[in-house]
Amino acid sequence: MHGNIYIIPSTIGDSGIDVIPQKTIDVIRSIRCFIVEDIRSARRYLSKIKMPVTIDELTFSELNEHTKTSEIADLLVPVLQGKDTGIMSDAGVPCVADPGALLIDCAHKNNIRIIPLTGPSSILLALMASGMNGQNFAFAGYLPVKEPQRSRRIQLLENRSKYENQTQIFIEAPYRNMQLFKTLVSICNPSAQLCIAANITLADEFIKTKSIEDWKKSEPDINKKPCIFLLQSVVSAVR
Amino acid sequence: MHGNIYIIPSTIGDSGIDVIPQKTIDVIRSIRCFIVEDIRSARRYLSKIKMPVTIDELTFSELNEHTKTSEIADLLVPVLQGKDTGIMSDAGVPCVADPGALLIDCAHKNNIRIIPLTGPSSILLALMASGMNGQNFAFAGYLPVKEPQRSRRIQLLENRSKYENQTQIFIEAPYRNMQLFKTLVSICNPSAQLCIAANITLADEFIKTKSIEDWKKSEPDINKKPCIFLLQSVVSAVR
Repeated sequence: MHGNIYIIPSTIGDSGIDVIPQKTIDVIRSIRCFIVEDIRSARRYLSKIKMPVTIDELTFSELNEHTKTSEIADLLVPVLQGKDTGIMSDAGVPCVADPGALLIDCAHKNNIRIIPLTGPSSILLALMASGMNGQNFAFAGYLPVKEPQRSRRIQLLENRSKYENQTQIFIEAPYRNMQLFKTLVSICNPSAQLCIAANITLADEFIKTKSIEDWKKSEPDINKKPCIFLLQSVVSAVR
Repeated sequence: MHGNIYIIPSTIGDSGIDVIPQKTIDVIRSIRCFIVEDIRSARRYLSKIKMPVTIDELTFSELNEHTKTSEIADLLVPVLQGKDTGIMSDAGVPCVADPGALLIDCAHKNNIRIIPLTGPSSILLALMASGMNGQNFAFAGYLPVKEPQRSRRIQLLENRSKYENQTQIFIEAPYRNMQLFKTLVSICNPSAQLCIAANITLADEFIKTKSIEDWKKSEPDINKKPCIFLLQSVVSAVR
């Protein structure tokens, strides 16, 4: 019998573990084998969770941007041998804007049962709080850094929002947030709505939706803060 | 001073409340004023949460597909008068494939603080467990019911998945799940990947990703079960 793979959300930044449901905590406490984005972050999180065994009794493998595709199958060996395994990323939800999907894809091909657990996702929380269309939305990840690709991409997203009434969600490396903000306000239609959601779930969480025109009058304080951007061109009555 | 609006996830179907984080439970218990999709479902959920006051001491307003746009502003009156208010839908996360976004949009325009809380979202959980691209994805809601619009839409989604490497997520009324499944296997490329995620968070949760070709050999048991469909045309190595 194969083990199961549990997809385990972590806290985002330094929030308390009260954002993690009891069921997720119970599953984490029952697992001894972890595939993680970074071992040090994982240990820190598990010590907050108060594991019933010492950290030395746990097994950790790393899965991150340095992992070669050819190494993915090896990570599944303990699972195929019957060990329940948890996959965790540094913050939030694995496999969504974070490593993990290739491993899960490989696990499906090996007929391994996948069990996703509930926890905080900054993308989902930002969408909920944006007031934008949640019946039709797209997440584009990171935008191109260089011009003119960056501006072209923003225009493409704005057009798609306009013609398909699809909320466009994207992110940026936190130290480039203000640069992206400035590009957005200079390129987008003044009537387009922009939601900026920074430090989600933390004490200084900031979530605000305003028109591009209104954002021009007051810059947000988002430099170096983890941030989700959401763009909507047309405000539709159908939600 | 205005009150805050808390966006409160509920359980999906009959799962235990152990999928709801303690922080979310604590906020629910502190609130007396609720805007809900359906009052009876909301009362049932709140009785599981064990409110510290009787249900009679709580105020409920309804916000659902019968609510007129002109009535939205009225729902905010208690918030503008200082009352902290929670918005809840029947299952899962408000404002995402569920009512609420128009109210939140109106709240932003009134400078009300919006606080989204963590809880189960079948769309997010399905995406996590699908093994499909979580760096670039789109949720399209319900597909058109009639042909040829339905087939055309599926082809459009498959093409977008193929040319943009964007995972396509969509839903159907549970009694039409099998009909949609049959259309998908008849239209999509045999090599395209289809993930079917049914009864998420429940005891008989079923999540499986297979090629269209493989799905043809074994129909899933998803009739009348709440279900998320995810389609990916090309398996990319970049995740």
